Amino acid sequence: MRDSLEGLRDRLARFAAERDWERFHTPKNLAMAITGEAGELAAELQWSDPADGLGIDPDLRTRLGSEAADILIYLIRFADVTGLDLLSEAKRKIDDNDLRYSVSLSRGNADKRSG
Amino acid sequence: MRDSLEGLRDRLARFAAERDWERFHTPKNLAMAITGEAGELAAELQWSDPADGLGIDPDLRTRLGSEAADILIYLIRFADVTGLDLLSEAKRKIDDNDLRYSVSLSRGNADKRSG
Amino acid sequence: MRDSLEGLRDRLARFAAERDWERFHTPKNLAMAITGEAGELAAELQWSDPADGLGIDPDLRTRLGSEAADILIYLIRFADVTGLDLLSEAKRKIDDNDLRYSVSLSRGNADKRSG
Amino acid sequence: MRDSLEGLRDRLARFAAERDWERFHTPKNLAMAITGEAGELAAELQWSDPADGLGIDPDLRTRLGSEAADILIYLIRFADVTGLDLLSEAKRKIDDNDLRYSVSLSRGNADKRSG
Repeated sequence: MRDSLEGLRDRLARFAAERDWERFHTPKNLAMAITGEAGELAAELQWSDPADGLGIDPDLRTRLGSEAADILIYLIRFADVTGLDLLSEAKRKIDDNDLRYSVSLSRGNADKRSG
Repeated sequence: MRDSLEGLRDRLARFAAERDWERFHTPKNLAMAITGEAGELAAELQWSDPADGLGIDPDLRTRLGSEAADILIYLIRFADVTGLDLLSEAKRKIDDNDLRYSVSLSRGNADKRSG
Repeated sequence: MRDSLEGLRDRLARFAAERDWERFHTPKNLAMAITGEAGELAAELQWSDPADGLGIDPDLRTRLGSEAADILIYLIRFADVTGLDLLSEAKRKIDDNDLRYSVSLSRGNADKRSG
Repeated sequence: MRDSLEGLRDRLARFAAERDWERFHTPKNLAMAITGEAGELAAELQWSDPADGLGIDPDLRTRLGSEAADILIYLIRFADVTGLDLLSEAKRKIDDNDLRYSVSLSRGNADKRSG
């Protein structure tokens, strides 16, 4: 198994197939699962001081890692069952954003988006 | 730029630095951004027939690819600013799920989770 | 306590004040809390057969009621701290939708929204 | 039409029935719609300074009101189609929280929840 998105994709596909879970993994259900996991990630940080970021305590970091992993896992499955190439899609989006948010116009502007 | 998560991570970090957006990219703000994008993905499929999945129409697939890319982009940034290695976290989670959901007990059981 | 949104709003405001939680109840934090609870609601139904609806089992209904309550509670707090009148806002939105989605053009059209 | 949750519930039910949208309004689909709208609310505030709260600018408040209304509308529909009484559910939850988070133990503790 290569440690890559493709490796994880294949392993997750096999995992679902072995358990006969493919029928649950529709695009709709997986999109719902992504919102569920995204909500869990948000819940970990909802009352936190927004200035926090560097000195996250180890227990919180462990939970954040677990939630981030869940989102990635469902996102990989979602892309697989809908026939999307995640890395290509992300690369194309970043190319678009490079054009859309020029450095000179976007510097430090909170209204702009992220990339 | 390699076409890999690491390549995207570095490119996104540079993108944010050039625009002086790093101060907006706190763990908390990025977690919120992930929920926002996850909600947009869900909105694309909320009224769809859940049996759909294979024959997604091209316009919808384009939109799904764009939303999935946004989620991945923010997730990569989130992992970067919190010091998490996304692939390792996902791999560990799948290892755990391999133990947790044995093939024999999980086959076809809708109550179980996904992997 | 009247059994009304206003009654709940006042009770929740007192609840937060007594615990010195008002400083955590910023619009931003409460919006995050709403996404967290919405994610929990979605998680309850993510693998369910979409045709389900009438014959929900009692345990699931109890959990759905609890999650729906959490969303409403945070939504009431959100409206309170941002100075919004939830019922008026909803009424205005429905008035708009009445004009926007005429009965004759919208009948049975899955692309349309809900109201 | 009374300006109350019950009034809105009945109006929304009629709105859906007239457009033959009831078949789209399954618990699952409505839960997804709630996450979509919650995500839109989060997106409005994701880059904002968390200390903001009182002096929200009028345009932002209008958008927040619109998003909050959408969440409430779908939540009312969700409760209606699943046979839940939103106000009773919320009241019960607040009663529970009164017992769970005593004033003396919860004062100013960020780890605690909200009510």
